[in-house]
Amino acid sequence: MAKLNHHFSKLSGNYLFPEIEKRVADYRQKTPHCKLMDLGIGDITQPLPASAVAALAGAALEMGKQGAFRGYGPSEGYSFLREAIASVEYAGLEIDPSEIFISDGAQSDIANFQELFDIDNRIAIPDPTYPVYLDSNVIAGRTRALLKTGRHGGVTYLPCTEENEFKPQVPTIPIDLIYLCSPNNPTGTAMDRKLLKQWVDYAKENNAILLLDGAYSAFITDPDAPQSIFEIEGAREVAVEFRTFSKSAGFTGLRCSYTVVPKGLKIYDFGSIHSLHALWNRRHATKFNGVAYPIQRAAAALFTPQGQKEVKALVSSYLERARLFRQGLANLGYTVYGGQDSPYLWCKTPPKVSSWNFFDYLLQSHQIVSIPGSGFGHAGEGFIRFSAFADSSALGEALQRLKSG
Amino acid sequence: MAKLNHHFSKLSGNYLFPEIEKRVADYRQKTPHCKLMDLGIGDITQPLPASAVAALAGAALEMGKQGAFRGYGPSEGYSFLREAIASVEYAGLEIDPSEIFISDGAQSDIANFQELFDIDNRIAIPDPTYPVYLDSNVIAGRTRALLKTGRHGGVTYLPCTEENEFKPQVPTIPIDLIYLCSPNNPTGTAMDRKLLKQWVDYAKENNAILLLDGAYSAFITDPDAPQSIFEIEGAREVAVEFRTFSKSAGFTGLRCSYTVVPKGLKIYDFGSIHSLHALWNRRHATKFNGVAYPIQRAAAALFTPQGQKEVKALVSSYLERARLFRQGLANLGYTVYGGQDSPYLWCKTPPKVSSWNFFDYLLQSHQIVSIPGSGFGHAGEGFIRFSAFADSSALGEALQRLKSG
Repeated sequence: MAKLNHHFSKLSGNYLFPEIEKRVADYRQKTPHCKLMDLGIGDITQPLPASAVAALAGAALEMGKQGAFRGYGPSEGYSFLREAIASVEYAGLEIDPSEIFISDGAQSDIANFQELFDIDNRIAIPDPTYPVYLDSNVIAGRTRALLKTGRHGGVTYLPCTEENEFKPQVPTIPIDLIYLCSPNNPTGTAMDRKLLKQWVDYAKENNAILLLDGAYSAFITDPDAPQSIFEIEGAREVAVEFRTFSKSAGFTGLRCSYTVVPKGLKIYDFGSIHSLHALWNRRHATKFNGVAYPIQRAAAALFTPQGQKEVKALVSSYLERARLFRQGLANLGYTVYGGQDSPYLWCKTPPKVSSWNFFDYLLQSHQIVSIPGSGFGHAGEGFIRFSAFADSSALGEALQRLKSG
Repeated sequence: MAKLNHHFSKLSGNYLFPEIEKRVADYRQKTPHCKLMDLGIGDITQPLPASAVAALAGAALEMGKQGAFRGYGPSEGYSFLREAIASVEYAGLEIDPSEIFISDGAQSDIANFQELFDIDNRIAIPDPTYPVYLDSNVIAGRTRALLKTGRHGGVTYLPCTEENEFKPQVPTIPIDLIYLCSPNNPTGTAMDRKLLKQWVDYAKENNAILLLDGAYSAFITDPDAPQSIFEIEGAREVAVEFRTFSKSAGFTGLRCSYTVVPKGLKIYDFGSIHSLHALWNRRHATKFNGVAYPIQRAAAALFTPQGQKEVKALVSSYLERARLFRQGLANLGYTVYGGQDSPYLWCKTPPKVSSWNFFDYLLQSHQIVSIPGSGFGHAGEGFIRFSAFADSSALGEALQRLKSG
């Protein structure tokens, strides 16, 4: 008799995004003529940069020509893209193109990377943070029973609160795999150089691995916060970095990302030394067949001078939206964090109002869709996330509605 | 201290395709001016159908336009593609579009599907067959130690040999998860209706799940061999089917496939009934973010009348190559199977010559690249696989070289 992976039953029943969709759909059904301002899900609202469009369309035509089309590509990605990323994104950082694996999404790679590790590794995750770090470990069986609090047994949570300026602190106990997210989704706070150095040192002392989600790194403006963990000395020996073109270049509908696994990253286990790079390479080749050639061409076009100009303009425009919205919320008396190194704003709910209650209030009284902070973890209670990827007009209209009470 | 997933060490060291690449590269280095005829890896050699090219290029332009571009799509795929597949590929078979999950490759889906099941399920795989069924289960820890024979402990192998006409027979012991591949890669043999019915009945009796890899189903010509397992009565309650556009429509460089998980497929476990469809949906949404919109548009274009004409012409042309090559080999005295319901030819090596020795002989004496049958499993020993996806001219030249001895 086939038996189920019983770890699935430990997943939190209220999966955040479907729950939001359900409440929004219910509200829409009751008030079909309302005009919702969606500041919830972090999807882009500006089209693909022209350079990427041209490259994508050009590659589409190539695919139809004998002598020009491409069949199976390398599962780790085409050299033309890996080299472009190494020379532009990691200029001066000694990242070799062969250390960069092209993939179809940072979400997939972050969810899959834990497969390289034994079930009994101790994991730590920021709280609040993006749900996939935890969920992928739950499915794999690396967590224990769901506690009454809604937290998972066997997981070390790293609180990111007002008290510590939303910066996950190095723990006093040994952890094996640590997920970090900088700038953090949802708090919008980037980790500074000093904090990242503490984490690198901690990882070295404990033979731990840092898994850094840098999905929003292009939005970092603070000169004290590195865009890559590999700016930190020693990081090559302890860290893996996940990046994506989704937000910086409007690729959410195209699906292209990359993961940097330095060759210096070794694990001592079973009495010998293992290369995480070799292991990921094997996993990648076994369970993944590469990203579509035209999509990789589109991504490579972002690294031309014109492509870089377009990406920078796109990032700036979202950051400007974030600045204006943050300013507007502050003028209305809200306490707001984030929005300076990230497109996300982390807004405190009014005193004694829970995240979900504030979500419902915003939806029902102002027809504004947000994301309740508690959906990202316990320490997110009392906050709400707004996305500045929303249309300028939606952000402006939302402010107007809040203003008029 | 971070600890590795020790199951990786159980993977067979000689991973088939890298070993072939190595031997070919070594030979090339020694004889740089030789002209190799590559009949090895099953990659396509004809460009993308014109309908798909036009749709892909059109969607690329859409992605650059405000009001037209698409961000995140549904992780399970766009309705326009799921509906097209249901109405054309499953016409008359009661497969609902919501039962079809769009993915980036049959390889990924087949490798990932085992995650839904507990580690202690008993698995069976055909021998020989595509290595990913076994490798994904090895990595997950569902197999025991690697035996001296090179086989894996805890796995039931289903021999596909000349004696049983390369048809995996229903076992006499209970198995929980059974991988089937029809037409089989590498033997090129499709399972007939009677045999599939036996498997469906077996699965019902044993509460087992059939995971049918139909990557090459479009090549089936035998009226007795169904293109889909869902043509078999009762299959909706026990089977999952994996399909891809890779070979039938030249999509190896575009990456698009689909998996059919019928809603009737239930598992009784932990004292209650679970829907495999709901579980796969959850896994998909958690660890995958959908296929690129332009790629899905390209796939949907294959279901227009013009697209269907192009796909049929492509499949026929590869089958014609297979027919001619099989005929040629037979004329030279070789014993050849497959090539009638599949683009793969399964050719017996000369008496007492092993697969790898025959591979080396073909490479060194005739500059022909093939795939040693033993790389697909023990029962593949004494065979070699040729791919009729190769260029017509390469197939013709290979025959000439074999003829001239």
